[in-house]
Amino acid sequence: MSGDITDTNSVMIADHLKRLGLNINRKSVVGDNLALLCEQLQLQSQQSRVLIVNGGLGPTVDDMTVNAICNSFEIDCVLNKQSHQHLENWCERLGFPLDQANLKQAYLPQGCDVIANPVGSAVGFSVIANDCLIICTPGVPRELKAMLEGEIPSAIQAFFNQQNQPLEQIITKRIHTFGLGESSLQQRIFEENFSWKDDIELGFRSGAPTLEVKVSASRDQESLLEQAYQDLQSFIGDYICSLGDQSQPANLIALLKQQGKTLTTAESCTGGLISATLTSESGASDVFDAGFVTYSNKMKSSVLGVDSQLIKEHGAVSEPVVLAMAKGALEKSGADLAVAVSGVAGPNGGSEINPVGSVWIAWGEKHKESDQVDLQAIKLFYPMGRKHFQTMVTGAALDLIRRNLLGITAEPRYLKLAKERSKNAIRDK
Amino acid sequence: MSGDITDTNSVMIADHLKRLGLNINRKSVVGDNLALLCEQLQLQSQQSRVLIVNGGLGPTVDDMTVNAICNSFEIDCVLNKQSHQHLENWCERLGFPLDQANLKQAYLPQGCDVIANPVGSAVGFSVIANDCLIICTPGVPRELKAMLEGEIPSAIQAFFNQQNQPLEQIITKRIHTFGLGESSLQQRIFEENFSWKDDIELGFRSGAPTLEVKVSASRDQESLLEQAYQDLQSFIGDYICSLGDQSQPANLIALLKQQGKTLTTAESCTGGLISATLTSESGASDVFDAGFVTYSNKMKSSVLGVDSQLIKEHGAVSEPVVLAMAKGALEKSGADLAVAVSGVAGPNGGSEINPVGSVWIAWGEKHKESDQVDLQAIKLFYPMGRKHFQTMVTGAALDLIRRNLLGITAEPRYLKLAKERSKNAIRDK
Repeated sequence: MSGDITDTNSVMIADHLKRLGLNINRKSVVGDNLALLCEQLQLQSQQSRVLIVNGGLGPTVDDMTVNAICNSFEIDCVLNKQSHQHLENWCERLGFPLDQANLKQAYLPQGCDVIANPVGSAVGFSVIANDCLIICTPGVPRELKAMLEGEIPSAIQAFFNQQNQPLEQIITKRIHTFGLGESSLQQRIFEENFSWKDDIELGFRSGAPTLEVKVSASRDQESLLEQAYQDLQSFIGDYICSLGDQSQPANLIALLKQQGKTLTTAESCTGGLISATLTSESGASDVFDAGFVTYSNKMKSSVLGVDSQLIKEHGAVSEPVVLAMAKGALEKSGADLAVAVSGVAGPNGGSEINPVGSVWIAWGEKHKESDQVDLQAIKLFYPMGRKHFQTMVTGAALDLIRRNLLGITAEPRYLKLAKERSKNAIRDK
Repeated sequence: MSGDITDTNSVMIADHLKRLGLNINRKSVVGDNLALLCEQLQLQSQQSRVLIVNGGLGPTVDDMTVNAICNSFEIDCVLNKQSHQHLENWCERLGFPLDQANLKQAYLPQGCDVIANPVGSAVGFSVIANDCLIICTPGVPRELKAMLEGEIPSAIQAFFNQQNQPLEQIITKRIHTFGLGESSLQQRIFEENFSWKDDIELGFRSGAPTLEVKVSASRDQESLLEQAYQDLQSFIGDYICSLGDQSQPANLIALLKQQGKTLTTAESCTGGLISATLTSESGASDVFDAGFVTYSNKMKSSVLGVDSQLIKEHGAVSEPVVLAMAKGALEKSGADLAVAVSGVAGPNGGSEINPVGSVWIAWGEKHKESDQVDLQAIKLFYPMGRKHFQTMVTGAALDLIRRNLLGITAEPRYLKLAKERSKNAIRDK
C-alpha cells in the first residue's frame, strides 16, 4: 500500500491456482484495518468458491487475519493444539524461548483445518464460510511457496471433490516471438480461422524485447491444445525465438551449441547488454568466448581495428563502421559468428542523419572452411528512451543471429520496415 | 490474474500518490470481465476520492476500460479528436499505417479530459463520477510512468483545489546504500535516538543490488525532514552510493566526470553486466571508453594479456588472474581506473575452493603522473542464483570503484566479512 513493496505473492498464488483449474476472479489489497478486512472477507467469500488470504498471521499487533476471520464469520478464537505444538517444536529447534508475542500465533478459529508450514513459525489454516473455502497463508514468500507446493492443492481439490465438482487441471503452452507488434499479431491470429478457435484460451504478454503468445486448456483437451500449439507455431513461423520456459538467449545458446559454433559481440550503444543478456543464461560459456564494448571511437580502432579514417568519413553510427566492428570482433575472438551495434541511445547525441533511436547492426558468419566472411548490416530505429532502446537493440541482435544460424532468408517485418524507412528518408531529401 | 506478470505498476502508482499526500485505501485487480469491472468501478468510486484505473486501454478486444467507464457511468463512447490526432502522429512517426485495431484507442468517454502519453500510442483520460476523480492509465509500465511524472499530479491537484481541499504534498528524501543488510540497518536506525524519530516517517526498500532508506513528511515539516535526511546521511556514511533520484551508476559517472577520470571493465562471470549497467545511464561516454568481456580463459590471455601459465596455476577464479585482468584492461584502454571480475555464477562450475557464488574482484587506479598502478583484490561470496549473483557482483564492482575514487580507506562490512570468511576457510582445512 505504501509503494515500497512489489507484490509477488499474488502472482505465485494465481499461477498455482491456475494449474489446478481455478480462474482468478478478483484480487484485493486492503490495509491493516479490521473493518475493511471484514468487509472484504464477506464480499469475496460470497463471490468466489475459494478465497486465499495472504499475510497477517505474524506475531505483531498489525497481524489481524485470525481476528478478521473470527469476527466476520462469528467463530471463536481458541488455542489450537496443532499450531501450539508446531510453535513449540519450532522454537526448540531454533533455540528460542516461546514468548507471549509468538504464542499469539497458536490461536486460530475454532474448528479450522491447519495447513502445515514446513519453513516458518506460523501455520496456515482454512475455514469454510458462505460456501467458500477460505485459506489463510503467511506473507513471507518462501513460507507461502512451501504451502502452495505442499498441502494447499490437495485441500482445494478435496473441497471440490466433496461437492462432487472435481477440478480440471489447466495446461499452458507458450511461444516467444521477436519482431511482431502485439496488436498486429493478435489481429492476424483472430482473423485466421483455426479449428480450435472457440475451445482454446489464447493470451498475449509483451515483455520487451519479446512478445509471448500462449494457449491454455484443461487436461482433457490436451490433444486439441497440442494442435493449437502446433498450428500457432506454423503460423508465427520464423518469428519464434523460443518456446515454453526457454528464454530468447537460452534458445540462442542451445542453437549455437547444436551447430558447434561460437558467437562474439562488438557493442557500442548497448554497452555490453548483448553479452550480458547472453551470459545471463547458464551454458553461455560453451558458445561465447569474448565480447568487446567499444564505446569511444578510439577504442573501436585500437581494440577492434576499425580504420579511424572510416569513422572520420562516415561517422561511428554507419554501415561501414559496424561492418568493420563485426569483422574486427571475429578476428580478435576467433568466433564463428559476430554481431556489432553502433547507435544513438540518447537522450543526447542525435543528428539529422541519425536521430536518437537510430542504430546500425551488422551480423554474420565467418565460414571456417573457406575463410569467407559473410556479413550484412541494417539500420533500425527504436526511438523509445535509452533503456528500452538498449533492450530492443539487444533483442534484434540476438534475433538476427538466430535467423542467420537457421538459414532463414525471408526478411522479417522489422527489416522490411527499416528498409522502406531508409528509402523514404532518401526520397525525402 | 494468470500468474504471469508481477504487478509493479500499483507500487509505482502508490509511490506517486503518496508524494501528492494521498494514502491508498484499497487496491483491486479484476480480470477482463466487463460486469466485474463495472461493479468494481462503482464500488471504489463510491469509497475513494481518486481512483486510478490501470490497463485495458490497448487496441485488442480484451482491453475494455473505456467500455467499462462508459457503461458504469452512462457516458457515450465517442471518437476523441485529441486522441485521434495523437494516434495519427504516433503512427506517422513510426512509419506504420493507422489500422482499425489501433483506431479503437481513439474512442473515449464523451467529455473526458485527455492525459498525454508522450511515449506510447494510447492516451490516458479522466472523468469525474460519484464525486471521485477516475483516471485511466495504460498498463505498459513506461507509459504509466511518463503520465505519473507528467500530467497526472497536476490533474489530481486541480481536482482537490476546485473543491477547496488542497492536498498537503508529501516530500520524500532517499538515500541509496550498498553493502548493508536491510534488517541490520533497520535495527541500527531504530536503536539510535534521533531527535526526529517520532515525527518523520522512515521507510526501507530493497532493490538489488542497492538498499534504499527514505524519510517522508508533509511540506510544513520540511526543515525537520531535512535534518533527518542529514542525520541519516552522517549515520550511513560511506555506504551511501547515491542520493535522491540518482542511481548507483549515475552517481559513479558523475564522480568520474568530476575527477576527469575514465573507467574500464574486464568481466568474466558478469558477462558485460557491469559495463551495461554503467552505460544504461546517459553521460557514460564521458567516462567510459571500452570494456572487455573475456569469458573464456583463452580470451583472458589473448585480449587482456593475462599470462596463460597464471591461469593454469591458480585457475581463472583467483586473485592473480583478476589482478592481471584489471592490469590488462588498463593497458588496452588507457583508462585511469579498472575493475575486473572472475567468478562462478552457477548453477554449474563450482568447486571446493570456489563454490557457486564465489567471485574475485580486482579494482584500482593507474596514476598517470607516476605510471604507478595501485590494484587490490578481494574474494566475495554471493550464493544466490545466477542472475542475482551477477547483479550483486555488479553492485560491488561499482561500489568499490566509488570508494576508490572518494579515497575511503575504512573497510566496508562486506569486505570485512569476506576476509573473515576466507580466514575461517583456511583455518578449517
